[in-house]
Amino acid sequence: MGKNIFFERKGPYWVSDLFADLKSKKKIKIFDIRSLKDASNDDLTFLDNTDYVNHAKSTKASYCLTTKRFKNYLPNSCEPIFVKNVLFELCKVTRKFYPNADIDSPDVTLKKPNKSNYLKVKFGSNVLLGKKVKIGKNSIIGSNTIIEHNVSIGENCTVGAHVVIRNSIIGNKVVVQDGCKIGLKGFGFIPIKGKNLRFPHIGNVIIKDNAEIGACCTIDRGSINDTLIGENTFLDNQVHIAHNVKIGNNCMIAGQVGFAGSSVIGESVSIGGQAGISGHLKIGNKVKIAGGSGVIKDIEDGTTVMGYPAVSLKDFIRNSKK
Amino acid sequence: MGKNIFFERKGPYWVSDLFADLKSKKKIKIFDIRSLKDASNDDLTFLDNTDYVNHAKSTKASYCLTTKRFKNYLPNSCEPIFVKNVLFELCKVTRKFYPNADIDSPDVTLKKPNKSNYLKVKFGSNVLLGKKVKIGKNSIIGSNTIIEHNVSIGENCTVGAHVVIRNSIIGNKVVVQDGCKIGLKGFGFIPIKGKNLRFPHIGNVIIKDNAEIGACCTIDRGSINDTLIGENTFLDNQVHIAHNVKIGNNCMIAGQVGFAGSSVIGESVSIGGQAGISGHLKIGNKVKIAGGSGVIKDIEDGTTVMGYPAVSLKDFIRNSKK
Amino acid sequence: MGKNIFFERKGPYWVSDLFADLKSKKKIKIFDIRSLKDASNDDLTFLDNTDYVNHAKSTKASYCLTTKRFKNYLPNSCEPIFVKNVLFELCKVTRKFYPNADIDSPDVTLKKPNKSNYLKVKFGSNVLLGKKVKIGKNSIIGSNTIIEHNVSIGENCTVGAHVVIRNSIIGNKVVVQDGCKIGLKGFGFIPIKGKNLRFPHIGNVIIKDNAEIGACCTIDRGSINDTLIGENTFLDNQVHIAHNVKIGNNCMIAGQVGFAGSSVIGESVSIGGQAGISGHLKIGNKVKIAGGSGVIKDIEDGTTVMGYPAVSLKDFIRNSKK
Repeated sequence: MGKNIFFERKGPYWVSDLFADLKSKKKIKIFDIRSLKDASNDDLTFLDNTDYVNHAKSTKASYCLTTKRFKNYLPNSCEPIFVKNVLFELCKVTRKFYPNADIDSPDVTLKKPNKSNYLKVKFGSNVLLGKKVKIGKNSIIGSNTIIEHNVSIGENCTVGAHVVIRNSIIGNKVVVQDGCKIGLKGFGFIPIKGKNLRFPHIGNVIIKDNAEIGACCTIDRGSINDTLIGENTFLDNQVHIAHNVKIGNNCMIAGQVGFAGSSVIGESVSIGGQAGISGHLKIGNKVKIAGGSGVIKDIEDGTTVMGYPAVSLKDFIRNSKK
Repeated sequence: MGKNIFFERKGPYWVSDLFADLKSKKKIKIFDIRSLKDASNDDLTFLDNTDYVNHAKSTKASYCLTTKRFKNYLPNSCEPIFVKNVLFELCKVTRKFYPNADIDSPDVTLKKPNKSNYLKVKFGSNVLLGKKVKIGKNSIIGSNTIIEHNVSIGENCTVGAHVVIRNSIIGNKVVVQDGCKIGLKGFGFIPIKGKNLRFPHIGNVIIKDNAEIGACCTIDRGSINDTLIGENTFLDNQVHIAHNVKIGNNCMIAGQVGFAGSSVIGESVSIGGQAGISGHLKIGNKVKIAGGSGVIKDIEDGTTVMGYPAVSLKDFIRNSKK
Repeated sequence: MGKNIFFERKGPYWVSDLFADLKSKKKIKIFDIRSLKDASNDDLTFLDNTDYVNHAKSTKASYCLTTKRFKNYLPNSCEPIFVKNVLFELCKVTRKFYPNADIDSPDVTLKKPNKSNYLKVKFGSNVLLGKKVKIGKNSIIGSNTIIEHNVSIGENCTVGAHVVIRNSIIGNKVVVQDGCKIGLKGFGFIPIKGKNLRFPHIGNVIIKDNAEIGACCTIDRGSINDTLIGENTFLDNQVHIAHNVKIGNNCMIAGQVGFAGSSVIGESVSIGGQAGISGHLKIGNKVKIAGGSGVIKDIEDGTTVMGYPAVSLKDFIRNSKK
């Protein structure tokens, strides 16, 4: 069973510790909260969206927070916990396991690097590192940059100045330009008048080899899953990537593009400046999205789209001529 | 009479010191420049926009910069000063009272916190504080963050790294994520070829309890009035809020949204990513604005809008089907 | 022959060192890579775009990377080097001259200012300067700001906190607000699956007198040419300016506007918030672009445009009424 290296986890809990009303026959303690796909048999998972029912039947989780409409999708090995509002209950139970993942409390144990631990790494002035930060050889870290505890950065990376990286695992030959804030908690909460309930963000940001992140980008970490930037994918300046977004390899994302949460972008996708991608979408491979477009529907492989809402280029031109 | 704690004020001035041509019978020195609503009887105010005539009749100001078309809106107690260009004259006279509020000269007296003054506050490394900064107990301030003179931050606040806060008053339990720049002068000036005349910004930023400001947001302070973020209002990353904007309680503002100056947003408003709100608008309570929309007109309570220019959802769908 | 003060240049090279197959009769070593307009007779230039053929006939370069379709545009003094893909070959040859301009390796020789070298300059805390940085009298530099080697800043400038400036030449009375990143490499590369080939950026950013740059703006330096911000041009917060963009004097650019690469903007242009300007466009003088517009075509002097794609205001209103 994997361990979350970035957040302290409480528990394990009996299911009756978490849901007092539930009568379960199982004698299994719950160790963690995981997605349908990633859960093992001592995890609790959740199902609240028809997009994910195909992950449900093969889940290894012992328990699943869900509603009655999804009851036929779960395997016998996974006991449903029926609730009215899955996200609200998930939020509350995740807060019990991870009481410190809902607000990014700054790491106040940061120190200047002990250079004997980082023999082949170059540091600018006033770099601040948390505990157990790993940085591969021939990497260089710019001045005033902060890398919080347990972050891992590969070899031959270039990280600029005024960068913050937390809760992230970064590959080799990655370039992160000045001013980026990577691995922060996402914009997820249950709206409650007077006091919103923040969703804990226990996922990471994964950045693969040869990726480049332009200046002043923000990449939020995942809530339960991870946020992912694929190999050799390049982001221009001021791009915003929300929690759980996954971007494939070899993509080109121009300046000021924004991604709402949980969208999955294919390989070799190119996106023009200031385009916006709504949440929970699936964008195929080799898709081209024109600058300024607003994408609110899934896009199939190889399609070029434009407009707000974005439509195929052919339709956009036809509509413009009307 | 209230005092501006952030900016040194010159004066008081006789009205003849400010407007040599004016023959006034009043024997009142002018101490400050205030909006129609906030002015007391030793203040100068201004009126240049029909949206504010309802504030005019009850103003307590002794003098009002205005044009002849507004002469019937002012009470007898308030003497009009008729000019051709109200904003230009207001800019010049405000510069006489506040000669240092047109450019944000960095506070070069910043120092590391004297921890005996902040016993129950946690600080990261290299935090820099101006004079008379107040921070409430159990608050935490991230590394490399700068809080300039006279700023007040409440209890149980979390302020990230690489933040700059000036000219601001921040409530309790507020979260400010990494990289935010709060309380800077707004984008206000009289365009003059070769040498624009900058408008002094003598207002503040007020952030109410339980609000959250995402990473890399910019919130400009007000020019004459304040910029306001309401209680329990949450902003995602890279949001830009211009001078004098007022956002009500319990709002949700997604990533990369931008507000032009002086718009007033109601309560429980939700705004999708990358939407833009023009200046001087009134957005009602419980309004929903779809991501990517461009709002250029007032919106009534409870309305959902979409598009550019934004129209009601019904109209948007009807137009799309044509 | 001018020298690039920011990047170490290798060479000079015989043309046969660069293009082994080329049989040239010339006995001239190539010292640098320059645009058609700027090249002298010991430079190599390039021509790949019909927009620039009018610069071709008067170029002083000795060699020009181009394709056969442009062969009739070059003067006899300039020998064409015919290739299939001009940008790819230009990228490779520029990398030979400038092997360190494709990634912004942080300047790790930064030091706190030796105040005896900057007698009439005020510095905040933890300012870091590279070698040979020039700052004029009565300028002030905010805390935690980084100014890399050879940057020149004029007199009476105000630079905020958390700013990074590299490869830039800044005039007098310029204001740069907090969090700006200026002079970084642009978003230019030859897409190659698995390993994009980055284009070296050997140009500068030039900011003219009296300009103002709002908080958290990003201004990338030019690839071969410079990026330019004209006199008395004011940028609001979170504006993104890509490589090689040239903005004329007396412009007003509102918040979150984005410019793609190489566009040329005239004088006295005003652009509303969140507008986007595509690459390689020519925007005339006194143009007004409404907020949120997406400009994808050249615009003539004096025109007001709106929409996506942006059209003249008259056409926009007519289309809206259909």
